Amino acid sequence: MLNRFISLSPLIGKGSRGFQGPALLSKRQSLLKSGAKNKTMSAKPFKVLITHPEVPQSGIDLLKENCELVRVESVPTNRAELLQKIRGVDGILWGGHEALNAEALDAAGPQLKSISTMSAGIDYVDLDEVKRRKIPLGHTPTVLDNAVADLAVGLLIAAGRRFHEGRKKIETDKWENYHLNWMLGQDVRDSVVGFYGFGGIGQAIAKRLSGFDIDQVLYTTRRRVAKDIEKELNAKKVEFDELLAKSDFLVIAAPLTAATQGVFNATAFNKMQKTAVLINIARGKIVNQNDLYDALKSNRIFAAGLDVVDPESLPPTSKLLTLDNIIILPHIGSATNRTRSDMATIAAHNVLRGLAGERMLSPAY
Amino acid sequence: MLNRFISLSPLIGKGSRGFQGPALLSKRQSLLKSGAKNKTMSAKPFKVLITHPEVPQSGIDLLKENCELVRVESVPTNRAELLQKIRGVDGILWGGHEALNAEALDAAGPQLKSISTMSAGIDYVDLDEVKRRKIPLGHTPTVLDNAVADLAVGLLIAAGRRFHEGRKKIETDKWENYHLNWMLGQDVRDSVVGFYGFGGIGQAIAKRLSGFDIDQVLYTTRRRVAKDIEKELNAKKVEFDELLAKSDFLVIAAPLTAATQGVFNATAFNKMQKTAVLINIARGKIVNQNDLYDALKSNRIFAAGLDVVDPESLPPTSKLLTLDNIIILPHIGSATNRTRSDMATIAAHNVLRGLAGERMLSPAY
Repeated sequence: MLNRFISLSPLIGKGSRGFQGPALLSKRQSLLKSGAKNKTMSAKPFKVLITHPEVPQSGIDLLKENCELVRVESVPTNRAELLQKIRGVDGILWGGHEALNAEALDAAGPQLKSISTMSAGIDYVDLDEVKRRKIPLGHTPTVLDNAVADLAVGLLIAAGRRFHEGRKKIETDKWENYHLNWMLGQDVRDSVVGFYGFGGIGQAIAKRLSGFDIDQVLYTTRRRVAKDIEKELNAKKVEFDELLAKSDFLVIAAPLTAATQGVFNATAFNKMQKTAVLINIARGKIVNQNDLYDALKSNRIFAAGLDVVDPESLPPTSKLLTLDNIIILPHIGSATNRTRSDMATIAAHNVLRGLAGERMLSPAY
Repeated sequence: MLNRFISLSPLIGKGSRGFQGPALLSKRQSLLKSGAKNKTMSAKPFKVLITHPEVPQSGIDLLKENCELVRVESVPTNRAELLQKIRGVDGILWGGHEALNAEALDAAGPQLKSISTMSAGIDYVDLDEVKRRKIPLGHTPTVLDNAVADLAVGLLIAAGRRFHEGRKKIETDKWENYHLNWMLGQDVRDSVVGFYGFGGIGQAIAKRLSGFDIDQVLYTTRRRVAKDIEKELNAKKVEFDELLAKSDFLVIAAPLTAATQGVFNATAFNKMQKTAVLINIARGKIVNQNDLYDALKSNRIFAAGLDVVDPESLPPTSKLLTLDNIIILPHIGSATNRTRSDMATIAAHNVLRGLAGERMLSPAY
């Protein structure tokens, strides 16, 4: 199990601000010791709820060393089952995107001292309620950066090179490649790639694009990233309007907040290049979807690639699905076996650390 | 025009065995000089056929400096028009994939002294007939490497991460991401990427993957590539069976020849990993398509991404289109504005050099 965990350290990458192997190890060892101490008092000192039956075994195995596990069995989550099983637990590994709010926290009771989600974004958590109760909350950023970044590059190329439209041409028997200028798409080479939000995921995408001979990376964030990261990724911080005007590919990689909600609207699209490709792997609500539809339908921008939409699930009647110049995926950015397993491992460590009164590997606040 | 051409040199990349900027320039200058000399004798010393009305202007502009142009107007190509207009020409810029065979060469006549296609693959050319007549033939490899390599990376991710199936899930309202293990795909990170054929396009793909933290590049070719390229790309030459057994992603990037035709058949698929993803950006006939269908349908391999199929166009009734685990595109690997323009430029230079009795920039034999 320790080996499994040590194997995570390469995920973090150079210059990361996440947890590090050695520091982690010593903390983990101390946790194991405190666990051992507790064992002299009680076989299973902590009761931990697993809110989803499909949490990977890697996380379950870690928790069951020192904890009695209670498990929600329903998929999709039966809220009543969750609220019943949550009573009296010390910790929670919150798998899935069920609302973590006052109702759930009240049902759990005041002994609850550690929660970790198994996700990077925590927009389904009422963070104020968690904070007010001073309950440590962990999440699992960083560990999904690679899987999401892979998918983002795939979306960027698929949208820029018209994969969906190409498929439709085949299905409708309109294969017209006797035209030399048929189905021309956007080159990645020499392009300016802009990032709205430039944390771990944005940087992982930029790193992947380093082999594509792009011209420059631009980014818009509140705070400038470290200079060595800027240098390594050939990245420059710019104002939002400049990002819109100059990006050939514009990747949304910011959290959903009051400040980012709906920021990509008609005003923004009108400042973009007609050849620009918009990618969203963050949260659907950052984009005004009606305005995006209009911008794509009128070819105001060239194409979009979305792993996230609003709402999820998107109704099959959504007019977005009628567009040729869009790639839409059902929010599968982190959907790889390894990422899911790593997320469960980190979440379990977060829970264990919270129970031990230690700082979580990746606290959410 | 010269500047436009010089701008091509970065396309070729380090360690390329293609043409180089400076050498090119001096040859081009000498060509211009010889053109000028000819002008003193005749306003337009050469008659050149352009076989397709959509050949980009960059190529047309170069040719019309010194040549009288004859242009086929039909799209798709009307063979009769082609055979009529080809009579008596000195050179041909062969745009499109119309058969270039004895019939066409006979129709042209014995004065024909220079031809260039506007493509990398020349399987629509009867090369023996061209050689027998000792007519210099150029093509346009290298210049499309970047566009095809971009597309290949997009296919690799789209196939490995189930883009087509994801879209279908949305369209059929089967968005089940309340399952934690829903729609899991293959990680690029730490994967072994194998290449069947490892020329300019294969190497350009490997270069793009250098930012993805892959484990290793393997390749199967007749000849080993230069050691510095192997080192730069972390690439190792292996036998075909080892390539099949070890590749997590296997990219077909070889020309279609008698030796490569149908090589990817049931025997080959049975040697691959169940999690393997097959990509073909070369030629459809290298894959036995019935066997591929069976391998995908039975999940013998995980997925495939095809820019090329057999035949092209693929009938909309093809059973390949019924599979969830396939991405199919209508042969749009080189379909970007810049690539098409660059292809026309190179092809025009090839024709001009052939006419001047000089070695072509990219001779096909």
